[in-house]
Amino acid sequence: MKEIKGFIFDLDGTVYIGDQLIPGAKETISMLRREGKKILFLSNYPLETRMKKVEKLQRLGIKAEINEIINSSFVLTEYLSKMHKTARILPVAETVVIDELQEKGHIITCDPEDVDVVVISWDRQFNYNKLNLALQAVKNGAKMVATNPDPTCPVENGVVPDTAGMIGAIEAVTGKQVDVIVGKPSTIMANVALETLGLQPEECIMIGDRLQTDILMGRNAGMKTALVMTGITNQKDMKGIDIYPNYLLDSIAQIQDIFSNQ
Amino acid sequence: MKEIKGFIFDLDGTVYIGDQLIPGAKETISMLRREGKKILFLSNYPLETRMKKVEKLQRLGIKAEINEIINSSFVLTEYLSKMHKTARILPVAETVVIDELQEKGHIITCDPEDVDVVVISWDRQFNYNKLNLALQAVKNGAKMVATNPDPTCPVENGVVPDTAGMIGAIEAVTGKQVDVIVGKPSTIMANVALETLGLQPEECIMIGDRLQTDILMGRNAGMKTALVMTGITNQKDMKGIDIYPNYLLDSIAQIQDIFSNQ
Repeated sequence: MKEIKGFIFDLDGTVYIGDQLIPGAKETISMLRREGKKILFLSNYPLETRMKKVEKLQRLGIKAEINEIINSSFVLTEYLSKMHKTARILPVAETVVIDELQEKGHIITCDPEDVDVVVISWDRQFNYNKLNLALQAVKNGAKMVATNPDPTCPVENGVVPDTAGMIGAIEAVTGKQVDVIVGKPSTIMANVALETLGLQPEECIMIGDRLQTDILMGRNAGMKTALVMTGITNQKDMKGIDIYPNYLLDSIAQIQDIFSNQ
Repeated sequence: MKEIKGFIFDLDGTVYIGDQLIPGAKETISMLRREGKKILFLSNYPLETRMKKVEKLQRLGIKAEINEIINSSFVLTEYLSKMHKTARILPVAETVVIDELQEKGHIITCDPEDVDVVVISWDRQFNYNKLNLALQAVKNGAKMVATNPDPTCPVENGVVPDTAGMIGAIEAVTGKQVDVIVGKPSTIMANVALETLGLQPEECIMIGDRLQTDILMGRNAGMKTALVMTGITNQKDMKGIDIYPNYLLDSIAQIQDIFSNQ
């Protein structure tokens, strides 16, 4: 692991859970920085800006720059800006995503007859009217681009519906699959991470708590991968699954042990 | 076709479109009644009571009894009453369905910790909060029963999202398929139709405009089937489809021609 130049961390379930830092996370990140490693934090969570993530990490005692944070709404905006200089967008999404799109010059519209892309994200104001607007826009030829494929998001005392709920509803009524999901496990997100780090995939490791997003993305992109047991996945979930990480870690803290033993 | 004893008609796209009767529909039904045939109208549409359907048919000039109407909310209520004398139900559904359930003695609840069945139907008040309640109820062990699988419903100038939108959202966040969909093409609806008619499947014909619901249900149940070209299906849609009706009719009116030529 000492040879690896870029350490890409998932956040929720890996570095922290809600507002609690995983024990040893701060020390592990500090140690990696001292060793001259590049650090990146990669999150599918589309309800917070990158700046909010920086503030949260700093509040928890981890120093981070905005350029070290990549979330699914940032990747979505970058992706759309490469496709269209200015896209006409019907958002099934919250203010954070809409604001990022507008800042990049995209045009927000609610007229389904004049839409290039239906942007689908976690939307706690999702309702039948938005579902109908998305259906009409897709029938008129709009593409569908989503931030992330997560069915649920962990919260205190359980889970709540995540972006997959909105995707599921819209796919069912349109009879079409979304054209692109930019977040993990998509290689689109992996590529933004690699460009940001300026590294090759084989020089990087993806560390996270979800097989279907973190580990799958790392593997598909050609990175090393490490699964931590502090989040959504437990040993039981590993049975019968075809996605194996290179490292199986109790927690992010174990990276320090590996470095001191190597 | 003269040998057939029970004629089961889909409504929208077959007998009428919106508020327009299909030309010849009234005369065909009258002719079948004169010939001593039993008539049944079978609709997946869950937003109107059976009585409203009777009133609509009579307004359009077709005499019908309430016992000749079977809709998906009626079948759902019958099905649940066989399963549970009184079920505790979380409804993702409109007032018509909720009223029918309450009339049969089922208990409507919004407490996801105390739900036997999440009832899923076409719901124009569907929103993120209802999606979350359904998720929590299913995580607590509730079953999912849906009225109908239709992606969209035809309206003047196009289509709007139907029950598949609500099913798609809930399936995506729960990671589970709905336990039962009672409407066409389910044999549950076919069996309610056959019980009501007091006939065997081979004595009946299902006449409708949708391959995936009307014709598939008729075929699966062992009935004869007839596809009419006055609704959602056109000749183009027949290519590459594996669901063939016994009769391909321009419209319901052609049944008169068949009777006069036989």
